[in-house]
Amino acid sequence: MTIQQAMQTVEDIMLQAVNSDVQTLRNASHHILSAGGKRVRPRLLMLAYAAAGGTDYVYAAPVAAAVELVHTASVVHDDINDHGVMRRGRPSVNAIWGRTFALLTGDFLFTKVYELMAPYKDLNIRLAEATVALVEGETLQAAAVKENNFTREVYYQIIARKTAALFKSAAVMGGEMAGAAADVIDAFGQYGYNVGLAFQIVDDILDLTVDSEHLGKTAGIDLAQGRGYAVAYAGNGSATTAVAEVAEADDPMKRIKQKVLSGDAVAEGQKQAEMLVQMAITALDKLPPSNFKQALVDLAHSVVQRDH
Amino acid sequence: MTIQQAMQTVEDIMLQAVNSDVQTLRNASHHILSAGGKRVRPRLLMLAYAAAGGTDYVYAAPVAAAVELVHTASVVHDDINDHGVMRRGRPSVNAIWGRTFALLTGDFLFTKVYELMAPYKDLNIRLAEATVALVEGETLQAAAVKENNFTREVYYQIIARKTAALFKSAAVMGGEMAGAAADVIDAFGQYGYNVGLAFQIVDDILDLTVDSEHLGKTAGIDLAQGRGYAVAYAGNGSATTAVAEVAEADDPMKRIKQKVLSGDAVAEGQKQAEMLVQMAITALDKLPPSNFKQALVDLAHSVVQRDH
Repeated sequence: MTIQQAMQTVEDIMLQAVNSDVQTLRNASHHILSAGGKRVRPRLLMLAYAAAGGTDYVYAAPVAAAVELVHTASVVHDDINDHGVMRRGRPSVNAIWGRTFALLTGDFLFTKVYELMAPYKDLNIRLAEATVALVEGETLQAAAVKENNFTREVYYQIIARKTAALFKSAAVMGGEMAGAAADVIDAFGQYGYNVGLAFQIVDDILDLTVDSEHLGKTAGIDLAQGRGYAVAYAGNGSATTAVAEVAEADDPMKRIKQKVLSGDAVAEGQKQAEMLVQMAITALDKLPPSNFKQALVDLAHSVVQRDH
Repeated sequence: MTIQQAMQTVEDIMLQAVNSDVQTLRNASHHILSAGGKRVRPRLLMLAYAAAGGTDYVYAAPVAAAVELVHTASVVHDDINDHGVMRRGRPSVNAIWGRTFALLTGDFLFTKVYELMAPYKDLNIRLAEATVALVEGETLQAAAVKENNFTREVYYQIIARKTAALFKSAAVMGGEMAGAAADVIDAFGQYGYNVGLAFQIVDDILDLTVDSEHLGKTAGIDLAQGRGYAVAYAGNGSATTAVAEVAEADDPMKRIKQKVLSGDAVAEGQKQAEMLVQMAITALDKLPPSNFKQALVDLAHSVVQRDH
């Protein structure tokens, strides 16, 4: 079985897992899952597994599916809280089915994660911890928006938990399932963590610079929350002040976007993401050369080179 | 250790589990947990465990805590969807912290369930299945409200999933942890399932007949959704027609309540609950006599005799 085929197995497992006899849950889950998405987390897991010598892709695939379902559940709930109406090039679940069913669909997806993970005893706690971190990161973000306290430090605390923790757990679980040595698992942890940070920074930059149609989701949400600003200005200035200014503006979205895009802040954020990717790739030195290792390197590069 | 002490251990485990360094999650979780609640699900689990000969209450307590956290998470999310402002005699999480944080708090509690359950491999899938059923039941309920299709049959489908499945899993997991024989576990399953159905019917009746202050949560929500009507009229008539009538009324809540309370529908629902409790108690015939078995009998009776 190739990695490509393994990724198809991951898709099949996800669609099968959400095949409830409750029509709304099944339809809403299929809607968001069949819209695609980059699948970067499960791919990262499968590649780490293979790069560490794992060959039983069928064994690893349900865990990869569970990781993607955690992400998908969080996306469905995010779109409720952020009033996002577009996701993966389609109307969001809340846009079609409303908030109540979107909330329940997210709960359903979260729960299916643990049904999938039940046979993988030791990994269970790892994914649960990463999921707790994700929810904590989302909460820190909502709190920072509410308290108007969006400093660079807070921004990094947020993305470490809401994005990097799940990337890290994906890489580590891949290594653990392959029976990798402790130093290799540690390397995977660093790789996943740094790729996750870079991924989120680029995500926030794209949210600033790309329109909704190309992005496939409602653009500018993060901007409206002040987060895009924090990342873009991460290197040079107080985002708190800027966000406060924006709150007073007539059309805050337009004004903040102009401000950010006129400076060198986006380029700065991009540079940071590239540095993190370099750190991630360096961590992989522990691994013997292989096509899978190379694919992990390529995946890391693709995270900063993407345009949506 | 007594059952009373075991229940205190369950409390301690829950409070410890939600002790996040993210202030809002910690505070909101402590708020809802420290408000008390009946703790009928974890008590049922501990009693089943003890009645089947289990003696290591410390081993069983985290699973009991996990069951209560599933319930608590669903309550927090319910209050978002139903706009409930009062719960367990306090303002609801969404009333204090708003919808966004309430949604995240519910996600946090759901996730903590699986952190607690990680060491209990075989039970993991059982609790995950019960939690899926719970979410499915809530979804069926929301769909029935939306489609104005609240028949007796639909009502039973809803309460079987949203309430009875978790009660059943609590009793069954108690038996399994004690190493009970298959027929005893089956008996626990019947006991938990029927107690759960009775509990929900009584809950819906109380929602109709008791004011918010005494109930400790926003009363009449279920009524507004048509569910109270379905249970109360379960024996005699089409709830669908009644709900349709209500939708046209000036003050639907008042009118429906008067209608229900003037008939014998509440008494009918109460009788059904009592019959289910009798079935639950009969299932316990498989167990040898003990104080714990008696406590399970008492618990079943208390479910229909409570006034809040």
